[in-house]
Amino acid sequence: MEKNMPTSATVERWADYEWVLEGPQDGNPFRDVTLAARFTHLSRSLDVAGFYDGDGRYIVRLMPDMTGTWQGVTASNSPELDNRTLTLTCTTASPGNHGPVRVSNTWHFSYEDGTPYLPFGTTCYVWNHQGDALEEQTLRTLDEAPFNKMRMCVFPKHYTFNSNEPEYYPFVRSQDGSWDFTRPEPAFYRHLERRIRDLRDRGIEADLILFHPYDRWGFAAMTPEQDDAYLDYVVRRLAAYRNVWWSFANEYDLMTKTTADWERLAQLVVTRDPWQHLRSIHNCRHFYDHTRPWITHCSIQRTDNYRTSEYVNEWRQRYRKPVVVDECAYEGNISNNWGNITAEEMVRRFWEGAVRGGYVGHGETYMHPQDILWWSKGGTLHGQSPARIAFLRRIQEEAPVAYLDDAPAGSGPRDLPCAGQPGRYYLYYYGFNQPTSKTFTMQEGVRYRASVIDTWAMTIRELPGTYTGHFTIDLPGKPYMAVRLEKAGD
Amino acid sequence: MEKNMPTSATVERWADYEWVLEGPQDGNPFRDVTLAARFTHLSRSLDVAGFYDGDGRYIVRLMPDMTGTWQGVTASNSPELDNRTLTLTCTTASPGNHGPVRVSNTWHFSYEDGTPYLPFGTTCYVWNHQGDALEEQTLRTLDEAPFNKMRMCVFPKHYTFNSNEPEYYPFVRSQDGSWDFTRPEPAFYRHLERRIRDLRDRGIEADLILFHPYDRWGFAAMTPEQDDAYLDYVVRRLAAYRNVWWSFANEYDLMTKTTADWERLAQLVVTRDPWQHLRSIHNCRHFYDHTRPWITHCSIQRTDNYRTSEYVNEWRQRYRKPVVVDECAYEGNISNNWGNITAEEMVRRFWEGAVRGGYVGHGETYMHPQDILWWSKGGTLHGQSPARIAFLRRIQEEAPVAYLDDAPAGSGPRDLPCAGQPGRYYLYYYGFNQPTSKTFTMQEGVRYRASVIDTWAMTIRELPGTYTGHFTIDLPGKPYMAVRLEKAGD
Repeated sequence: MEKNMPTSATVERWADYEWVLEGPQDGNPFRDVTLAARFTHLSRSLDVAGFYDGDGRYIVRLMPDMTGTWQGVTASNSPELDNRTLTLTCTTASPGNHGPVRVSNTWHFSYEDGTPYLPFGTTCYVWNHQGDALEEQTLRTLDEAPFNKMRMCVFPKHYTFNSNEPEYYPFVRSQDGSWDFTRPEPAFYRHLERRIRDLRDRGIEADLILFHPYDRWGFAAMTPEQDDAYLDYVVRRLAAYRNVWWSFANEYDLMTKTTADWERLAQLVVTRDPWQHLRSIHNCRHFYDHTRPWITHCSIQRTDNYRTSEYVNEWRQRYRKPVVVDECAYEGNISNNWGNITAEEMVRRFWEGAVRGGYVGHGETYMHPQDILWWSKGGTLHGQSPARIAFLRRIQEEAPVAYLDDAPAGSGPRDLPCAGQPGRYYLYYYGFNQPTSKTFTMQEGVRYRASVIDTWAMTIRELPGTYTGHFTIDLPGKPYMAVRLEKAGD
Repeated sequence: MEKNMPTSATVERWADYEWVLEGPQDGNPFRDVTLAARFTHLSRSLDVAGFYDGDGRYIVRLMPDMTGTWQGVTASNSPELDNRTLTLTCTTASPGNHGPVRVSNTWHFSYEDGTPYLPFGTTCYVWNHQGDALEEQTLRTLDEAPFNKMRMCVFPKHYTFNSNEPEYYPFVRSQDGSWDFTRPEPAFYRHLERRIRDLRDRGIEADLILFHPYDRWGFAAMTPEQDDAYLDYVVRRLAAYRNVWWSFANEYDLMTKTTADWERLAQLVVTRDPWQHLRSIHNCRHFYDHTRPWITHCSIQRTDNYRTSEYVNEWRQRYRKPVVVDECAYEGNISNNWGNITAEEMVRRFWEGAVRGGYVGHGETYMHPQDILWWSKGGTLHGQSPARIAFLRRIQEEAPVAYLDDAPAGSGPRDLPCAGQPGRYYLYYYGFNQPTSKTFTMQEGVRYRASVIDTWAMTIRELPGTYTGHFTIDLPGKPYMAVRLEKAGD
């Protein structure tokens, strides 16, 4: 424990700064000691709640989001912790630190510094509960993978392929062996925070699942008071990490909580998160009402085995929020249909979502002799979709437009999507269809460069010359092809 | 022309018998001469309208549908044709002649003799307008193909890949070159009838399209009176062929007729067809109201590029009629999305429909140097789906149950169909999913033989022993697999 805290410090914008204070250890400090700090920056102030980290150690964790000087002062019911002050100098962010992700242009995301953020997520629900060896293998895999968002749970998971005990538990046990829900386990959170930082340092957003139904320990069946205390502690500890997103549930509709419960929990986070991280709630069978104002974006699990990301444009219109299809099913070969689509089908779903202006997420569920399935435990990737997802990400990131919206197609059958921005950039995707040509009727006078993209073979063939008005592009008569038109000179 | 008509004849049940009479040639006999015959069989009588076939030749075409003696007597406004009599002896049908197809068990079909009829249709819209060489090639192809229904038009077709003139026209031209819609061309109909008989002799139902929008001759733009006269003549000539179905339109919603027009045309056929052949009406963008009483079964074109035959069980419940997905898209590689799905996807759509208790139709649209695409002109088949459709047909026809209904699955994910009859026969299909196993929870005490079917490789692997209660079947972890459970001893 640090005995002599500095009264001034320097930290870069959107970093997490820890103001560590020493305070009382007697009784139950988690429950009994209040601690908050007000940070003032010019005409703005930010109220940040602190938390007890055990062993007399109190922390106020701050993400300064404006450069310049912040003046902090604490308030506490403990005299030791009350009226402490801090001068914090916030410098410009270092390269690669763009701040937290925000909703942008209705259906998209950007980092707080304005850089577009296009989510290419994956799911390893409890990779953070598997022990250091496997967790570090997961991180090495992520170093090579195309993913910039990780869907993961705070709590451990009990389910098929998930029978192991976690390394850490979120609560301290009472003497009778039951959980003392009034005493969070600091070691649990320090480990979780380490993994969140590991993701952050790799440019990966942590789409943190706060509640889920797959439980044998009792964490899915806490009382409302216990839920509130847990969630309050989570927000105090984790809100200062710029890469945190709040996913209220994986499959809220498989839990026993009521809509009133979810709304109360949402309001708790809305009220107490000083940085207003992204918030979503993920379904199993039925969507939550994504029109609720506290929901920043749709986090969708497919409710139809056949059509999935083909609904993205409808959902965009219905909700007028970003549409993230976090679970379109997973590449793999397990018995369950949510976990046995081919790599081709996974990639197809990514493209179908992308050209409708949405964002599809990855997961992988190949049978494994030690039950190490990427979708839950991480480890290594075995499938063929990640390379193709990287290819799609490259195409989207290299586009001359920041975001793909479903554009009115220049021509083509009524049932085919086209992404882009009218007059500048079009990305047509033909999915499982295998045309030998496609005819386009574009605005006369605008000249386009055209490329034929094989989304499976990962090749881009730029056609010579330019095209305008009415023209036909030959295609190889096989599935998974795309055509890209880019305004010449752009 | 036969001068001396027999006054008695013998014909087998459900054959077409032609009672040929000589009559007046002056004026316009098509319009001016009435002719009908009443056929009496025990306590039953059947009123059959005759038709003028040109050159003073009048025909009453009869399909006797009960064995025994039929007594016929004509009525006409021409004394030559009036009050003529005929004794017709109807013998039992020869093997392979099962009579016309009827709706059976709400969602299915059987021939009139009770033999189940499972439609495995194909489409060659105007194969009958291509001249004898190509038409006979089409018939040779059909000899080897698995299809027992042909979707085909009365009128010729004008469309992409269809620029040739037909061999025959349905009307005689006036001296000014325009059509005389009051004078059907007998040669046109004799040719059509020959092709209908060619299909009949191969066990193929002629799903005859009465109107369609793809026209450059004016046949899609006749007046209501012209439509009625045309349709009346068609019914008089063709209703005695047991393998005729009336498909009122291909893509009724692309024509200029109103719902009132369609309803009037339907009532004409309902009133005048003595044998009440099957009746349907096929959509492009929007279904006709398939709840209309005159519609015997749903003839569906997919309205969704992605989900097609996966809707069959919903349509079954909505309409409570047989569901025939006549156009689920075609195997091929043309530009249009309705004509460029892979063979794998075509076969998948057949299976998805079959295991939901429906019937899917085939078509093929591979680019051809002479524009001979099977879907419209016939010729030869180039694709890989027909062999797999034959395999599915064999499986369905060999099943110990007459029809596949969507059965409550013994177990399995909520979003997977299963066909069969509870307790006797189950056919599970896994489509594009690639499970390495599936677990079943069946009724204890009923023992099943199990087979693993590769619907693409066309293999059936019968597993040793029998299964009951809760069990798991290993699968190869690739797409397009099915599992069949048959009650042991059946």
